[in-house]
Amino acid sequence: MHLASDAAVVLLSGGQDSVTCLAWALTRFARVEAVTIAYGQRHRVELDCAARIARRAGIGMTLIPCDSFAALGGNSLTGPEAVSDGLRSDSGLPTSFVPGRNLVFLTLAAARAWQVGAANLVTGVCQTDYSGYPDCRADTMAALQTALRLGMDAPFVIHTPLMALTKAATVLMLRDLGHLDWLADSHTCYNGSQPPCGTCPACRLRAKGFAEAGVTDPLLGP
Amino acid sequence: MHLASDAAVVLLSGGQDSVTCLAWALTRFARVEAVTIAYGQRHRVELDCAARIARRAGIGMTLIPCDSFAALGGNSLTGPEAVSDGLRSDSGLPTSFVPGRNLVFLTLAAARAWQVGAANLVTGVCQTDYSGYPDCRADTMAALQTALRLGMDAPFVIHTPLMALTKAATVLMLRDLGHLDWLADSHTCYNGSQPPCGTCPACRLRAKGFAEAGVTDPLLGP
Repeated sequence: MHLASDAAVVLLSGGQDSVTCLAWALTRFARVEAVTIAYGQRHRVELDCAARIARRAGIGMTLIPCDSFAALGGNSLTGPEAVSDGLRSDSGLPTSFVPGRNLVFLTLAAARAWQVGAANLVTGVCQTDYSGYPDCRADTMAALQTALRLGMDAPFVIHTPLMALTKAATVLMLRDLGHLDWLADSHTCYNGSQPPCGTCPACRLRAKGFAEAGVTDPLLGP
Repeated sequence: MHLASDAAVVLLSGGQDSVTCLAWALTRFARVEAVTIAYGQRHRVELDCAARIARRAGIGMTLIPCDSFAALGGNSLTGPEAVSDGLRSDSGLPTSFVPGRNLVFLTLAAARAWQVGAANLVTGVCQTDYSGYPDCRADTMAALQTALRLGMDAPFVIHTPLMALTKAATVLMLRDLGHLDWLADSHTCYNGSQPPCGTCPACRLRAKGFAEAGVTDPLLGP
């Protein structure tokens, strides 16, 4: 299968990391589009954020539903339980870990890329701020890239521009790319609050990054 | 993550190959359950077949929905188009190839296996009767196994007992396992006909296998 090496599909969740990846991709590839997965997020606002950011960026966005993980249950990102940063007693992984989720989402992004002939996949996974998610590691991404290449007979490249960055460095990357304002339409809060709750693990991680970067979060005000 | 090495999850589509894999798994593992993916098959009868076969085998079956591929479209197994064995002009792959489908289905089976602590995944992919599906090859399965192990931090083993078998050998395997009668509840026909249409590529492949094995297909009569 021939794929264009100057075309990319970005996994866009509407969160800070994926927004930064989108801005990064636009500087690298001539043709960029977004894939957003509707996986039964507890907060539909995330999908609205992704759509608004795609509009700001002037790119197309494909919404791909994925009802599998909500049906499988057993995790705190689609279930009704409050999100904490606790660890599961059986695996030692965070309760927010959904086994297979990133693998499936990237495979769906690759399926879309196959359809439109794009060789590049871009995702905001990050090993530095690694919170115990094994599907965010570089070696997992390398193995998945091999599986996607063989399984679709197509020379995909998975790009992870944030893999080695701290949250502060991610803030500065987006600022330097000139699109910090896009974050006014982003979301991060696990509890789906607008303005963000400020106390969940995701809000605390985001606030820490902006503080260390010495930058004001556009989501929190002008 | 600790997984039991004597427990397995079998991907059960309700077709001949997956039925044979189920019979094989029951001779190898102490604890076996099935995962069936509802992916927008054109024929709901396939899901009924899988459920009946799981009942015959006395095992539990988890139905996992996956609405992603029907939404992505562009293939003949979920779309309204008639199924042929034609090749796509862009990739040279069969029109029935759905990019990423087997990768996602196996990842979902692994997600279920993670939940129930089963180390073994069993799938009926086959390289011998390889019809141009790159996601049925042994090297794809090996790469996916690595990605699943790393991505879920769990020592999964993907078993492909039919990988090197002809269709005739698969018929004889199921007969020797003593469960040829289970095929009375199986399906194969791409057109969803009961009795099978006999003319679609899947029906022709199945008939050829039984003819070469010198065995009467239980689906076609007593």
